[in-house]
Amino acid sequence: MAAARPAKFTVVGAGLGGALMAIYLGRAGYEVEVHERRADPRVSQQDGGRSINLAISTRGIESLAAVGLADEILRMAIPMRGRMMHSLHGELAFQPYGTEAAHVINSVSRADLNIALLNAAEKTGNVRLVFGKRCAGVDLDTATVSVTDVDTGKKSTVRADAVVGADGAFSVVRQQMQRLDRFDYEQAYLEHGYKELTIPAGPDGRFLLERHALHIWPRGGFMLIALPNRDGSFTATLFWPLEGEDSAASLRTEADVRRYFAEMFPDAVPLMPALIEDWFRNPAGTLVTIRCRPWHYRDKVVLLGDAGHAVLPFYGQGANAAFEDCLVLSECLAAHAPDREQAFARFQALRKRNTDALADLSLANFVEMRDHTASRTFLLARRLEKGLHRLFPARFVPLYTMVTFSRTPYAEAVERARRQWRIVKLAAAAPVAAGLSLLLWRRSRR
Amino acid sequence: MAAARPAKFTVVGAGLGGALMAIYLGRAGYEVEVHERRADPRVSQQDGGRSINLAISTRGIESLAAVGLADEILRMAIPMRGRMMHSLHGELAFQPYGTEAAHVINSVSRADLNIALLNAAEKTGNVRLVFGKRCAGVDLDTATVSVTDVDTGKKSTVRADAVVGADGAFSVVRQQMQRLDRFDYEQAYLEHGYKELTIPAGPDGRFLLERHALHIWPRGGFMLIALPNRDGSFTATLFWPLEGEDSAASLRTEADVRRYFAEMFPDAVPLMPALIEDWFRNPAGTLVTIRCRPWHYRDKVVLLGDAGHAVLPFYGQGANAAFEDCLVLSECLAAHAPDREQAFARFQALRKRNTDALADLSLANFVEMRDHTASRTFLLARRLEKGLHRLFPARFVPLYTMVTFSRTPYAEAVERARRQWRIVKLAAAAPVAAGLSLLLWRRSRR
Repeated sequence: MAAARPAKFTVVGAGLGGALMAIYLGRAGYEVEVHERRADPRVSQQDGGRSINLAISTRGIESLAAVGLADEILRMAIPMRGRMMHSLHGELAFQPYGTEAAHVINSVSRADLNIALLNAAEKTGNVRLVFGKRCAGVDLDTATVSVTDVDTGKKSTVRADAVVGADGAFSVVRQQMQRLDRFDYEQAYLEHGYKELTIPAGPDGRFLLERHALHIWPRGGFMLIALPNRDGSFTATLFWPLEGEDSAASLRTEADVRRYFAEMFPDAVPLMPALIEDWFRNPAGTLVTIRCRPWHYRDKVVLLGDAGHAVLPFYGQGANAAFEDCLVLSECLAAHAPDREQAFARFQALRKRNTDALADLSLANFVEMRDHTASRTFLLARRLEKGLHRLFPARFVPLYTMVTFSRTPYAEAVERARRQWRIVKLAAAAPVAAGLSLLLWRRSRR
Repeated sequence: MAAARPAKFTVVGAGLGGALMAIYLGRAGYEVEVHERRADPRVSQQDGGRSINLAISTRGIESLAAVGLADEILRMAIPMRGRMMHSLHGELAFQPYGTEAAHVINSVSRADLNIALLNAAEKTGNVRLVFGKRCAGVDLDTATVSVTDVDTGKKSTVRADAVVGADGAFSVVRQQMQRLDRFDYEQAYLEHGYKELTIPAGPDGRFLLERHALHIWPRGGFMLIALPNRDGSFTATLFWPLEGEDSAASLRTEADVRRYFAEMFPDAVPLMPALIEDWFRNPAGTLVTIRCRPWHYRDKVVLLGDAGHAVLPFYGQGANAAFEDCLVLSECLAAHAPDREQAFARFQALRKRNTDALADLSLANFVEMRDHTASRTFLLARRLEKGLHRLFPARFVPLYTMVTFSRTPYAEAVERARRQWRIVKLAAAAPVAAGLSLLLWRRSRR
């Protein structure tokens, strides 16, 4: 009896999600061809100024671990144990992220991570990577991708049994599906944009800010953040309104920019010698949330990562969610093999409501980071959360901990957090609970 | 001194919104060219089975009156004074729509209405209508529309000072704007579809159901409705789930359809001799809500009607809102002339939140019509509303009345209705109010 030919997948996009999915598919014995618009990042440098740093946490790590890559990736990362808040007057306040020492998020360079994944994909022996080919369209019924060579303009077609659309927020694969009747779709831009800036390393590659922290300068309607890089530098990102007062549009001259930074981020200015150069060279990026449904077309096409559910970067979960997509999709493919349509449908059923919840969380965390991280009520609530978790470790788990340091599905985490707080509020209403809270409050100050 | 050349507008789409806007623009002295994909409806019959009947009410009437067309249109219409509910057992119950005798909505044929508007547009002397030209794209910066002749395939371009995108829910003009950065967009399909059916006139053009009513067969998850036509017939529309049990997909054979109708709409079956023919000939339509922002590009392009804000048909406000758009846009153009960019921006500022509110209302009314119109709580609440309005005519106005029989902006109507109910609930909480309610309840039963 001849063995059945393994199914062939075309993966559109060799970014983080596409590369990891190729690894999963290649290891499962599928024949995989990945087509990517950009040049091979292992050969040519990518443009700077457009990549918000990544923080890999539990979902990402477990999805990498399932294909044996977690250790290698974590060796490239800098653990961040919490948020370091910078006040207007330069005072620092540190807020740990988790409830245990192991609760760190890992700052990693998108480029380095991508390269590691591409190397691992090739190592499976079943993955062929093709760079410099822009996806121009997809024939959904035949799983045929049309690609255009970005240098020569030459067109060709790539036929497979199925297509994975891992081509990001502006996915061409999804645009093809959008033409189907009854395709729900939403793109919502944040009124804030972002601009990347650099805090270079000090002498001998010294970190000029605490390295094991994500730095935040929360300023109400806007904020500056900074994540550490392995070379001692930090990548800083300003998030601020694109229009109106103190907006992108209002900072026109060098003097405008200098005055704004001196007033808003006085302790950061001395750390950014190339501020003006960065400012006028790096484009102002926009930020979009994308939701759609369905994520698949029969057994032919499936979307993952930003192509299916782009979220704002403020919960540090975009890449983690894309990695978790790869893990869940490969589990669904294995469980339903060889029925890909069932697998794709199950994947959507398992993930869609969770990535919807993540989209909401990511927006809410922006408001929290820019407005509340410095407020006393916020700090008190976070302290109360941790105190409750110490008292009832299995019963009360802070939302941030569930989202970042567990694989509890996002929607379930949100639901559970709501239930927990409802119980706390009920308890707090009883006089006996008042004493308990006081006790907790005292304990947590020790 | 030479008079300034009047600005030239290209209107894309000669449907209801496009035709009325052309009238407004033509009467204001602008030079207008309207390009429409379909053939001239005055020359060739349109396809049947895809046009949900229209009910014109106050917003539409006032927008027609402003250009002297209200009387002509109302003469073509059949006033509907309320809903006639048909129970499973064929019992009838009539619910008046309004609080006054003048509160009627007007059933009118979309085709007849469109023809009347096209004739009026030509009569302005400034409007040129071009049929059979499909909009293929728009150069936003130069207000240049590319059109393709649907018969010959010949392409040409139409240049103007500004473009009005009145080309419906699947607007090509809007699709062009969607490519701009920071364009917010959402399309959401209802899980229900629709199919048009016919209740023909009786002998001598007699109406076989009460003519001055909108008939509803509410059945929980789905419903049948029927609106009167001038020739004695009714156009019936079934709204029902596209998937699952009792869905479009589950009714495959003639016997399936007959059994379903006999069980669900027994009193309607004898009125629909062509049921089976209609069923298998008329396509199942889908229903979509569309929201987007911005509605304009500089002073070059503006969207109106379904192109900017397609809503579900369940509040009977889609065409009324499109007509009101025309009135408001022409007021903005007059107020800010010759600054079109300001006029377009003001139009969006005045309308966007209101059409967003209408989108929500239209979905909520679907749930109300199919699930609640037959329930006792619903009937009691409606009766209470009317009782409160009789007692406090200026203070308490039912939401339906504000939406349908006033030009109170939609969002304001929703907000006011919320406030009114809050006050009623507060009052009802006081014991004295209990007596009042009882009194009202008694009175309303008389």
